[in-house]
Amino acid sequence: MSQNLWVFTAQCPSVIGTVDVCTHFMAQRGLYVVQHQSFDDRIAKEFFIRIAFHPEEDGFNADEFNRAFKSFAGRFNMSWTLTPPEKRPNVAILVSKYDHCLNDLLYRHRTGQLAIEIPLIISNHPDLERLAEMHNIPYHHLPISKETKPQQEAQIRELLQQYDIELVVLARYMQVMSPEMCDYLDGWAINIHHSLLPGFKGAKPYHQAWEKGVKMVGATAHYINNDLDEGPIIAQGIRDADHNSYPEDLVRQGQDVERVVLARAVQLHIEKRVFLSGQRTIVLQD
Amino acid sequence: MSQNLWVFTAQCPSVIGTVDVCTHFMAQRGLYVVQHQSFDDRIAKEFFIRIAFHPEEDGFNADEFNRAFKSFAGRFNMSWTLTPPEKRPNVAILVSKYDHCLNDLLYRHRTGQLAIEIPLIISNHPDLERLAEMHNIPYHHLPISKETKPQQEAQIRELLQQYDIELVVLARYMQVMSPEMCDYLDGWAINIHHSLLPGFKGAKPYHQAWEKGVKMVGATAHYINNDLDEGPIIAQGIRDADHNSYPEDLVRQGQDVERVVLARAVQLHIEKRVFLSGQRTIVLQD
Amino acid sequence: MSQNLWVFTAQCPSVIGTVDVCTHFMAQRGLYVVQHQSFDDRIAKEFFIRIAFHPEEDGFNADEFNRAFKSFAGRFNMSWTLTPPEKRPNVAILVSKYDHCLNDLLYRHRTGQLAIEIPLIISNHPDLERLAEMHNIPYHHLPISKETKPQQEAQIRELLQQYDIELVVLARYMQVMSPEMCDYLDGWAINIHHSLLPGFKGAKPYHQAWEKGVKMVGATAHYINNDLDEGPIIAQGIRDADHNSYPEDLVRQGQDVERVVLARAVQLHIEKRVFLSGQRTIVLQD
Amino acid sequence: MSQNLWVFTAQCPSVIGTVDVCTHFMAQRGLYVVQHQSFDDRIAKEFFIRIAFHPEEDGFNADEFNRAFKSFAGRFNMSWTLTPPEKRPNVAILVSKYDHCLNDLLYRHRTGQLAIEIPLIISNHPDLERLAEMHNIPYHHLPISKETKPQQEAQIRELLQQYDIELVVLARYMQVMSPEMCDYLDGWAINIHHSLLPGFKGAKPYHQAWEKGVKMVGATAHYINNDLDEGPIIAQGIRDADHNSYPEDLVRQGQDVERVVLARAVQLHIEKRVFLSGQRTIVLQD
Repeated sequence: MSQNLWVFTAQCPSVIGTVDVCTHFMAQRGLYVVQHQSFDDRIAKEFFIRIAFHPEEDGFNADEFNRAFKSFAGRFNMSWTLTPPEKRPNVAILVSKYDHCLNDLLYRHRTGQLAIEIPLIISNHPDLERLAEMHNIPYHHLPISKETKPQQEAQIRELLQQYDIELVVLARYMQVMSPEMCDYLDGWAINIHHSLLPGFKGAKPYHQAWEKGVKMVGATAHYINNDLDEGPIIAQGIRDADHNSYPEDLVRQGQDVERVVLARAVQLHIEKRVFLSGQRTIVLQD
Repeated sequence: MSQNLWVFTAQCPSVIGTVDVCTHFMAQRGLYVVQHQSFDDRIAKEFFIRIAFHPEEDGFNADEFNRAFKSFAGRFNMSWTLTPPEKRPNVAILVSKYDHCLNDLLYRHRTGQLAIEIPLIISNHPDLERLAEMHNIPYHHLPISKETKPQQEAQIRELLQQYDIELVVLARYMQVMSPEMCDYLDGWAINIHHSLLPGFKGAKPYHQAWEKGVKMVGATAHYINNDLDEGPIIAQGIRDADHNSYPEDLVRQGQDVERVVLARAVQLHIEKRVFLSGQRTIVLQD
Repeated sequence: MSQNLWVFTAQCPSVIGTVDVCTHFMAQRGLYVVQHQSFDDRIAKEFFIRIAFHPEEDGFNADEFNRAFKSFAGRFNMSWTLTPPEKRPNVAILVSKYDHCLNDLLYRHRTGQLAIEIPLIISNHPDLERLAEMHNIPYHHLPISKETKPQQEAQIRELLQQYDIELVVLARYMQVMSPEMCDYLDGWAINIHHSLLPGFKGAKPYHQAWEKGVKMVGATAHYINNDLDEGPIIAQGIRDADHNSYPEDLVRQGQDVERVVLARAVQLHIEKRVFLSGQRTIVLQD
Repeated sequence: MSQNLWVFTAQCPSVIGTVDVCTHFMAQRGLYVVQHQSFDDRIAKEFFIRIAFHPEEDGFNADEFNRAFKSFAGRFNMSWTLTPPEKRPNVAILVSKYDHCLNDLLYRHRTGQLAIEIPLIISNHPDLERLAEMHNIPYHHLPISKETKPQQEAQIRELLQQYDIELVVLARYMQVMSPEMCDYLDGWAINIHHSLLPGFKGAKPYHQAWEKGVKMVGATAHYINNDLDEGPIIAQGIRDADHNSYPEDLVRQGQDVERVVLARAVQLHIEKRVFLSGQRTIVLQD
């Protein structure tokens, strides 16, 4: 939906009254609900809600909303977010040498399809600097070796803080991060893995796929956590493959899937549609 | 979702407070909301809501719910439905000679995938009687000619009333119905058209498709109304086609799409996910 | 393609002249080539060809063709097959309790979509006998226990020989076969696995999929060999899934994929489009 | 397939011996066939063949091949093409203001995915000049009005000749061309139409689609001819849509389909996989 709307999301343990505590609060404040979705997971025993709304009258005050909602939320042990329509989160993109995902994200950023700011691009290689320049985005080349990994990761963390980054996108950043770095990024970094997880974990999945003679190649966008290539899945995509596709063809064909899946995951995330629930995600789709 | 839940749906003109009037009412009655979806269409200026819930305590009384909700609904000019979990609507299936859709619906009925009763099958041909027998379902052969059309349609209407039918499924019933019959079925009969409407309306769409050299064939499930092959669309599907597919191949390949799309539309309808909004449908998906 | 055509297939090590030895031979015999596909795999260094043709004149003699081609094939170390248009291979279907794949195969068999004979159905459970009866196909109930597995498998082999079976289809036959049985079936038995291999091997893949929160469920049809759930892949399919799908929903949703993928694999096999190449298949599609 | 191969294609009326005249000729010249596909259309009574090959020895002479093949082709009334592996055709891209297709083509060109040269971009608007500059490609701004259309089209034709253009791609060029211009471009210009033709011809197809409440949006790449939005179809694609998608959302969502479908059609064309057969195309896929 293309309207400019406020978005409210919340999450709490399953119990009766969770919907009403949110919707009644809004009704009493004259907030007009345009889209509402909620889901109560009977296995995880957890509740998730997303409401897109606009105030009926001028002068809606988010701080006042948050202060007033606090006591209601408290009763339900509910965590919540409130995001204004004009909000464009700061996103840092990490890359290595492949540029298909970066190019796609930059295109969607430039044309306004993705409502984000990209204050910087970070890479362990210099190759994609020209592409960053074409879009007037600062490019930080932070080379890495086995020895310098701790320092390089520290530099990245410093940059993320300096630029007030809210979301990190690993757009084919071909480095295994340290456990500390994974912990640091837990829940606010999206990675694209070039296979339909959990098949073909680890290195060279397209070559593994060719060896198996698969008839489909896929890609998986997931949150980073400490379990390599195994964080909570946000979005997946596939395309047909066949015997004509040698490993290098699968690589190329898979790139079209990767960039679409990654862009979709970023979109879902910034629209506040993705909720973490243990090792799974709940995605309240458009 | 496989839980046995009550389903409440409602629809009314767009105005503030539409969500709250439903959800607050439920909260006050101790009804546990498991899934909630609502949508406010800013062009049609119409509001749609679907809530799946279960009572926290025994003794939930639907009549009392409906009586009590009436005055609230009145204020919003809201129409609503309340459907119990064990509800299996009576569905009549109309066919001619093609059996792929019928076979699929009977299979899903037999295995419980589709929670419906099928008290009768009606056909203008005798061909599929054996298939009906295999599933122990009465088969009414009502032949039709240009002259007998009014009588035949009257017979159908009589049967639909006699068996207390709530949904009519035209599973490749190859007859153009009279305007009176279309009016009669408006909103409670689903047809499968063997093309991706609005392309290839009318007769022999697969032959039309071959002539055009299309690279995809599709199917469209829609509600019947007075506009031939043009009622509100519920579900659509496609599959790839190519030059190897002669018209008779497209017919065969398309059948796999038709039966899946039709079954999907029936499922959405009986789960109370489809709302009519002028010539369009709003489908609040699972 | 719906024409009745002879099909010639061949396979041999990569070397120059492989196409010509087949096509020139045919031209000289007045055989009209309708569809020709060949592929030379530069990694496996193997050549594959499939030619659909019809004789220009009556009196085509397959035996004479085979005798005459033998010396040409010999030079290329080429194995080949020649299949007449009216050929309907004998297929045995093995099932346990799930009937969605069986029902689909029987439907396609009954309507002539799948040009096969099904002289018998074998099961380790009695549950699906009624479905077999409805289609007038003998049903052999061969119960199995840990102790009786060798005898039961021997009974199956005996039946396959007795009925002159050319293809065995494991339509959700929920038994791990012995290595001997797998060897026996190597290359002429197709299994449907209810996941997108190589993800989720082994038992209860849909439950594994739910735990991982996957956004797609898939199915894989593959030839049986000694590597459990890991034989050469023939066809794969997927459909979207989401958080609303509990494990039992995934089971149900996946069944629609399973039956389509299995039917597709059987179709490709009987049309002589699938070639084995080590652990992979080459599929010369329509 | 990623190998560098020569490609031979041919087309002629259906008659026995068409395959052999090509393959035997190649065998006698020591040409190694890597991929071969042929199809004989029984309705159009036309034969199509595509052979990818490499010479076994150095010194393959295309002129000699063409001279020698001429007499064989003559007997079959066969037209043919022979394309060297290093061949990169000159492609002109025509645009108006939308840049999603242009951006995608430029990306695939820059990374070598599309083996083409793009010596110029032509537009009736100045808006996309900056994007052309970023890729160092000359941008010709040729404004157009009702009065100047003949002159503007003449300028385009002049540029196409000057730059020795072999393929024109209309990447959302929002002008209805004159019949003369359509004739001029017949068979060597690819247009992207933003609907699944033949549904929603003409202007604002996404708005038409919204009015109909379609559940899918599509795009069609086709050759230009004198029948507006109705030339022979090369490739089509779709994606799901729903009630949440207002017309402006469908526009945006459709763009992802358009760019993929257009790029695919260009790829198929330059790989010499597309054959014209009346108002249809035969596409011998990879």
